[in-house]
Amino acid sequence: MASPLDRLVDELSRLPGIGRKTATRLAFHVLRAPEEEARALARAIDEVRAKLSLCSVCCYLTDEDPCAICRDARRDQSQICVVAQPQDVMALERTGSFRGLYHVLHGVLSPLDGVGPDDLKIAKLLRRLEGGDVQEVIIATSPNVEGDATGVYLAKLIRPLGPRVTRIASGIPIGGELEYADGVTIGRALGGRREL
Amino acid sequence: MASPLDRLVDELSRLPGIGRKTATRLAFHVLRAPEEEARALARAIDEVRAKLSLCSVCCYLTDEDPCAICRDARRDQSQICVVAQPQDVMALERTGSFRGLYHVLHGVLSPLDGVGPDDLKIAKLLRRLEGGDVQEVIIATSPNVEGDATGVYLAKLIRPLGPRVTRIASGIPIGGELEYADGVTIGRALGGRREL
Repeated sequence: MASPLDRLVDELSRLPGIGRKTATRLAFHVLRAPEEEARALARAIDEVRAKLSLCSVCCYLTDEDPCAICRDARRDQSQICVVAQPQDVMALERTGSFRGLYHVLHGVLSPLDGVGPDDLKIAKLLRRLEGGDVQEVIIATSPNVEGDATGVYLAKLIRPLGPRVTRIASGIPIGGELEYADGVTIGRALGGRREL
Repeated sequence: MASPLDRLVDELSRLPGIGRKTATRLAFHVLRAPEEEARALARAIDEVRAKLSLCSVCCYLTDEDPCAICRDARRDQSQICVVAQPQDVMALERTGSFRGLYHVLHGVLSPLDGVGPDDLKIAKLLRRLEGGDVQEVIIATSPNVEGDATGVYLAKLIRPLGPRVTRIASGIPIGGELEYADGVTIGRALGGRREL
């Protein structure tokens, strides 16, 4: 057996959702790809570990502190969008539909998993609101039990400090079909209906 | 935006079958995995390119020449299993059901794609048969038009040199259901029927 190839297949199959067959396909791609592409991938893996840390303001991942979003003076300093994970910031930034600031909780409240308020970046969020510049905090956790509970918990802490607290809408996704939506989503979509 | 993270997502999305969402999920896994796991993956990518070349005997990928399979004296030197790609050797070796030698063609005959006999490792295969030690050549290309045609072509060249030429069986896969099998497969399964 060709051992460097086996090693690469082994390492790739440790990745989540990558089975042995996919790992083999990926390994052969790496083997045949242009030299610089393979090298760029290896370097990117090394660098992501070495260079990234949490932004001291918003707790997003960054290679400079504060992060590029927090440093950007053109962004709306009066809105903070609260998300559970750094991935959520990436997803929102890709849409280009939000121009305010973020705060990453690094989790949601989940008593069953032993995640309480002290395990999340909540104290840091409350400190950001002390200056009085922030007028709205948008809770953008996922619309499920934990995400909703985290939102309600945060709202109770934030409202006394002054800012409005809002929650992102949930309902039938754009392009989705009512026929195939689950009952809870249809219920939310009905409950959140607006005047046309 | 955290640029080392973006770079890793970019590099991962170049892999076949990996879209941006999967690449993001993988990147965050790499970021959170134990340090040594991430480093092992990066090293495996670098090494697979630097250390692998083709075995001068069977054309399989190897980091030593001849490869471990060709050097293994306990393997049956009288059988050569001919496959299209190195991946096929890996798949066969995983089953442990073949104990002979291999020969990797690195492709199949495909006039439409401009792949002719000279583009495959056919001359090398014929030279291996000159010694007279090989008694059987098993054509294990995939059972499709190109794989079958390649098998017929090889059989014509090999039979005059002495060895038997056989073809792997095709039919309904184990665990598959006749009801859902395609017509061509059912036809092959019927044609290849054996006495019980």
